[in-house]
Amino acid sequence: MEITLHSPLDMHLHVRQDAMLDLVAPLTAQHFAGAVIMPNLLPPVDTVERLHWYTSEVRRATSGYAFEPFMTLFFRDYSHEELLAARDHIIGIKLYPAGATTNSDAGVREVLAMDHVFGMMQELGIPLLVHGETHGFVMDREAEFCEVYRELATRYPRLRITMEHITTAKAVSLLDEFENLRATVTPHHLIITLDDVAGGLLNPHLFCKPIAKRPEDRQALLEASLKAHPKLMLGSDSAPHPRHAKEAPGCAAGVFTAPIILPMLAELFVRHGAEQNLQAFVSDNARRLYGVNPPATTVRLANDPMQIPASYGQVVPMWAGRSLSWSVKEVTC
Amino acid sequence: MEITLHSPLDMHLHVRQDAMLDLVAPLTAQHFAGAVIMPNLLPPVDTVERLHWYTSEVRRATSGYAFEPFMTLFFRDYSHEELLAARDHIIGIKLYPAGATTNSDAGVREVLAMDHVFGMMQELGIPLLVHGETHGFVMDREAEFCEVYRELATRYPRLRITMEHITTAKAVSLLDEFENLRATVTPHHLIITLDDVAGGLLNPHLFCKPIAKRPEDRQALLEASLKAHPKLMLGSDSAPHPRHAKEAPGCAAGVFTAPIILPMLAELFVRHGAEQNLQAFVSDNARRLYGVNPPATTVRLANDPMQIPASYGQVVPMWAGRSLSWSVKEVTC
Repeated sequence: MEITLHSPLDMHLHVRQDAMLDLVAPLTAQHFAGAVIMPNLLPPVDTVERLHWYTSEVRRATSGYAFEPFMTLFFRDYSHEELLAARDHIIGIKLYPAGATTNSDAGVREVLAMDHVFGMMQELGIPLLVHGETHGFVMDREAEFCEVYRELATRYPRLRITMEHITTAKAVSLLDEFENLRATVTPHHLIITLDDVAGGLLNPHLFCKPIAKRPEDRQALLEASLKAHPKLMLGSDSAPHPRHAKEAPGCAAGVFTAPIILPMLAELFVRHGAEQNLQAFVSDNARRLYGVNPPATTVRLANDPMQIPASYGQVVPMWAGRSLSWSVKEVTC
Repeated sequence: MEITLHSPLDMHLHVRQDAMLDLVAPLTAQHFAGAVIMPNLLPPVDTVERLHWYTSEVRRATSGYAFEPFMTLFFRDYSHEELLAARDHIIGIKLYPAGATTNSDAGVREVLAMDHVFGMMQELGIPLLVHGETHGFVMDREAEFCEVYRELATRYPRLRITMEHITTAKAVSLLDEFENLRATVTPHHLIITLDDVAGGLLNPHLFCKPIAKRPEDRQALLEASLKAHPKLMLGSDSAPHPRHAKEAPGCAAGVFTAPIILPMLAELFVRHGAEQNLQAFVSDNARRLYGVNPPATTVRLANDPMQIPASYGQVVPMWAGRSLSWSVKEVTC
């Protein structure tokens, strides 16, 4: 059995910089025709100058591949001039509401203090990409933030808002309530729950933010993905950390999946008899929702097993050492 | 300000064996007049012979202290002869329902397959100590197991059943529903929630089973403890693991608190204006509920700060390196 995918896109990706960029960016570019590149470097990518530098860095690290990086800016109080100068070089602006507090009212207030920026983004047609968590109890953060999504979607009906890496049934249900809300979901949140992180022994390699939630949340995410809900896109949130940062106390949050995303999804969609919807989930929905035109590539997967390496350089992938029943056989342009 | 406690008891304690026993048992015996010693060695303490050996080991490791170990057997399908031979040497039998599955009905069936043993324990007046978790979703395991407690308490109205290390509001509410149910609670579950384990970076030293729950669960445990609910006892579940077993992937579950329990509780009870209830919580309730008579000791605490060591041998305590505002000044017999 084989599956052919056209121009798969990863709509939420961390590739870092320097040596880590050189290690991980090709692991995405080898399979994907494009990816949304997150701007959370230290310092963040929040000037047009820094955006151009980072774009050229990502292009350099992925040269030789038919791969288009869709760049983002880190949200701050931008001027109209800055937004105008950035617009043609970004796919959106990523907001992490650092000041949002435990209750969602405060979260709304905090986020909405940036009213004027959202207004300009709406006028200029720049999408808003949001890490939607309050600072509340870890299992409630996304559900509480849904009130912020509601308020944003209502106030800015023409602002395209992406709920990034959603993890709850509540966020899934918002997709059908507001025309201008769409979402990404990670492969790992379709598969794991908090049980996999902390139900047996503690597994730092499955520890991520937002944290994996309850079985009924996973079920809602999975159902929406398997039917390729038209407003849902693959966004892996693949986030490399060196082994020492994951395996020590104070483990950093992030799951590294970049090189195994397509085999994981093939296995998952085939198991549920939904392989006919994989193309929409991994590419067509994103192309339509963002109006992007990635390079034309063809990825052929077959149900030949692959062994997941113990590590890629210093980075330990999800399910290191296990095998998947599907693998990528060929990528052509 | 000072607090004087008489014969404090830790009604749920792990002291292991060999070098670990020699390290940690004195750290309890220096402050406590007695402790319930858990039988989960490898292999478990599940014969009268092994019980006698372990009792003498614990006595050896705590010799010189006014300290009484209250021993337990590891639950299995014991004969009447075995129970009779053990009865005068144990405070109870500890059940870990290893076969209990995700749903509570199956949990009940599994546990109740041991009907004949519970019946004999009831007749012989041997208390049942229970690790009450199903194999369900990690945040639901104790709440699901409450159905098993209900069934046990109803079927064996004269069997004294201790719900060990409770972590949920639901378990607290059972205390008032069934005369023969009582519970222990750990100091750390009065203080932390899942946020402290996985809400920021991952903290392996606060990872334990049952896992810390939601804020409203902690609140219910705290309220019941601060008023020294007559059926609630301090049981620290202090569980030493060497640093390498806590700080590696596959972190073992357990929080080590033995040497800081009384200062932690003094700080907590004073902060809430409940210091007058500390004696009942740390000793009187247990003496009444179990009918035990520990050595008469007096522990004097003062609000002089103590610095929590980075480690005790290879064992990292809760809050290593932080300071507490209370400390133990003197223990007299």
